[in-house]
Amino acid sequence: MDHPLITLTTDFGLKDPYVAEMKAVILRTCPDATVVDVSHEVDKFNVRMGAFILAAAAPYFPVGTVHVAVVDPGVGPERRGICIETDRACYVGPDNGLLVLAAQAQRIKQVREITNKTLMMPEVSSTFHGRDIFASAAGHLANGLPPSSFGPEIVKFVVPKFAGAVSWKGAIAGEVIHVDDFGNIITNIREGDLGSIGVGRSVKARLKKGEVKMRFCKAYGEVEAGKPLTLIGSHGFLEISINQGNASRVFKIKNGDAVTIYYY
Amino acid sequence: MDHPLITLTTDFGLKDPYVAEMKAVILRTCPDATVVDVSHEVDKFNVRMGAFILAAAAPYFPVGTVHVAVVDPGVGPERRGICIETDRACYVGPDNGLLVLAAQAQRIKQVREITNKTLMMPEVSSTFHGRDIFASAAGHLANGLPPSSFGPEIVKFVVPKFAGAVSWKGAIAGEVIHVDDFGNIITNIREGDLGSIGVGRSVKARLKKGEVKMRFCKAYGEVEAGKPLTLIGSHGFLEISINQGNASRVFKIKNGDAVTIYYY
Amino acid sequence: MDHPLITLTTDFGLKDPYVAEMKAVILRTCPDATVVDVSHEVDKFNVRMGAFILAAAAPYFPVGTVHVAVVDPGVGPERRGICIETDRACYVGPDNGLLVLAAQAQRIKQVREITNKTLMMPEVSSTFHGRDIFASAAGHLANGLPPSSFGPEIVKFVVPKFAGAVSWKGAIAGEVIHVDDFGNIITNIREGDLGSIGVGRSVKARLKKGEVKMRFCKAYGEVEAGKPLTLIGSHGFLEISINQGNASRVFKIKNGDAVTIYYY
Repeated sequence: MDHPLITLTTDFGLKDPYVAEMKAVILRTCPDATVVDVSHEVDKFNVRMGAFILAAAAPYFPVGTVHVAVVDPGVGPERRGICIETDRACYVGPDNGLLVLAAQAQRIKQVREITNKTLMMPEVSSTFHGRDIFASAAGHLANGLPPSSFGPEIVKFVVPKFAGAVSWKGAIAGEVIHVDDFGNIITNIREGDLGSIGVGRSVKARLKKGEVKMRFCKAYGEVEAGKPLTLIGSHGFLEISINQGNASRVFKIKNGDAVTIYYY
Repeated sequence: MDHPLITLTTDFGLKDPYVAEMKAVILRTCPDATVVDVSHEVDKFNVRMGAFILAAAAPYFPVGTVHVAVVDPGVGPERRGICIETDRACYVGPDNGLLVLAAQAQRIKQVREITNKTLMMPEVSSTFHGRDIFASAAGHLANGLPPSSFGPEIVKFVVPKFAGAVSWKGAIAGEVIHVDDFGNIITNIREGDLGSIGVGRSVKARLKKGEVKMRFCKAYGEVEAGKPLTLIGSHGFLEISINQGNASRVFKIKNGDAVTIYYY
Repeated sequence: MDHPLITLTTDFGLKDPYVAEMKAVILRTCPDATVVDVSHEVDKFNVRMGAFILAAAAPYFPVGTVHVAVVDPGVGPERRGICIETDRACYVGPDNGLLVLAAQAQRIKQVREITNKTLMMPEVSSTFHGRDIFASAAGHLANGLPPSSFGPEIVKFVVPKFAGAVSWKGAIAGEVIHVDDFGNIITNIREGDLGSIGVGRSVKARLKKGEVKMRFCKAYGEVEAGKPLTLIGSHGFLEISINQGNASRVFKIKNGDAVTIYYY
């Protein structure tokens, strides 16, 4: 590729120099790379939210993209760094479940532990593997080095337990995996879990504060401003929203809360 | 152009994967594009603020730049997507007035409704035209496709009513179109509206909390720290500021408030 | 260089169009440039925090990078603009101390006042030298113009007084130069100031709220979650942290506060 693509997903925020340090290392290793920020506003140490955001964005990137993600509460010598190669992309980051949600949606070809010190920064700090190991690895991958250069293949790696949704007669129970910046409540209920529920149908959502009746829509604008609705968002998950309003604030819902949809 | 330029202006924020999804679609369509963020921190659904921010930045970009803007409270099948070609740039986004303030400052050559499905993402979601229609269109424009490829020419499109300033003997009345991150209060009063008011003159500004005397300056540093002043900002609009302070907080002013300048 | 690198460090925030206007001017002057944001979330007018963030990021960028920084409370005709050339990079910005911390860590070859109007935007606003002078200069430097093109060499420029740490028997006294987004408290005490203090040792940190005992570690994960520690951060400065917690909030510490480390 003329301009290899590398994406970054972290909980570093944009105030500090950390993201720029990662980009500096990437561009020093691979000057032709185009670096795209997925998000640096993942809630601190929230591996599950980082995993969702990466999994939502990754499918849209072209084949051959290298995705680096760093949400890393356990950074230190014990926690392994890994590189997952799928049929569409490479994922680089800590072995704590962060990469797996995105990678599993594609076909995983191999997983490598990153141990080759000659492909890291000359001095690896104990606290910033994002820069010293992962950004450096991403630059080398973008230059065309194969995943096998980085270390031994492994078969055991951390698979996160972000629970799938559970269905029974007339109901589906799941949980909130993300609250977006508009206050939309995004659940782990996928389009395929919905079976016979057709668009236009009325459903009841049981949330923290009791049950709320709403319509299953295709677009926010199908209900009046200020009214609740549910729909399959552009990322393929069921979300609960308020047209032109903030559903998470109104229903006092946050990441991890339970959600049940009744459609009897 | 070797590196076609595409800018993005949205109210999506930087926490969610939405902006990255737009960039992924752009770079998949036009791998050589350089994508520049204008702002993703437009207040949610505030078309007027988005229009101001785009209009402030657009003149500085080189001829041939493609500007994508998405502040889109009415997203859905009813709301049209448009492409405006001017003598300097192309503007892509919803037909809700967002693009017109920037485009009208240049010479509008044609406006096209975007209807050609072969230039959209294969599956267009109901909620995210920014990615599925506008980012895709921007990539194709950057590749050199003419606006006529996207759909029929239209002559009626939404023109926003952000009121122009009104002058009478010794006074000019306008309104706040933006409060910047420093707390500077930016009005819709343009340099040309000021007629005989010369720099150095004392004026009175009538704001929500009464009248405030201040000097019409060329630079913030011309008054002491903590003192109010008024000047023509770098974007060509009159602003009311406090040197090294936050004018919007001190005067409790927000977007849309009325401002009158007396210079008798 | 095929893709000359230009970095930006400002206190402009990401809501307003100001950063995009700088990038527009850079890319108009040097279309092949790769522009990397270091940070635009420097606290408003906080030259010291801007200086730290630039100094932390700059060493990671490749030789030949052009760094533009704008934290500029004194913008106006009196305040000079300068370009500092070191053996690794060029630094462009206001002569208020902002650039010197980063530049002094390299070998300064020359300092030029920026006076050549033909290398500025045709109309220089009084309030936005970041766009009209510094971005334009950076684009020309990236195109290969030597610093001598911009104006006369100067030998007197503002050197900031961010105090170095002071050591005596069994103690080192310094101050907080940055609180990062994780709440880590970063001091101006450098690795070299620590002399005989070895990793693993217990120390006492005197902070605003009294003395706190903690261990001098290599990585956050060496103490339990919620426990304080001190370590040399990836930027080479001593920081006080709480593993998976927010030290600045717990100890009520902010930029500029005094910190003393006792290791008797």
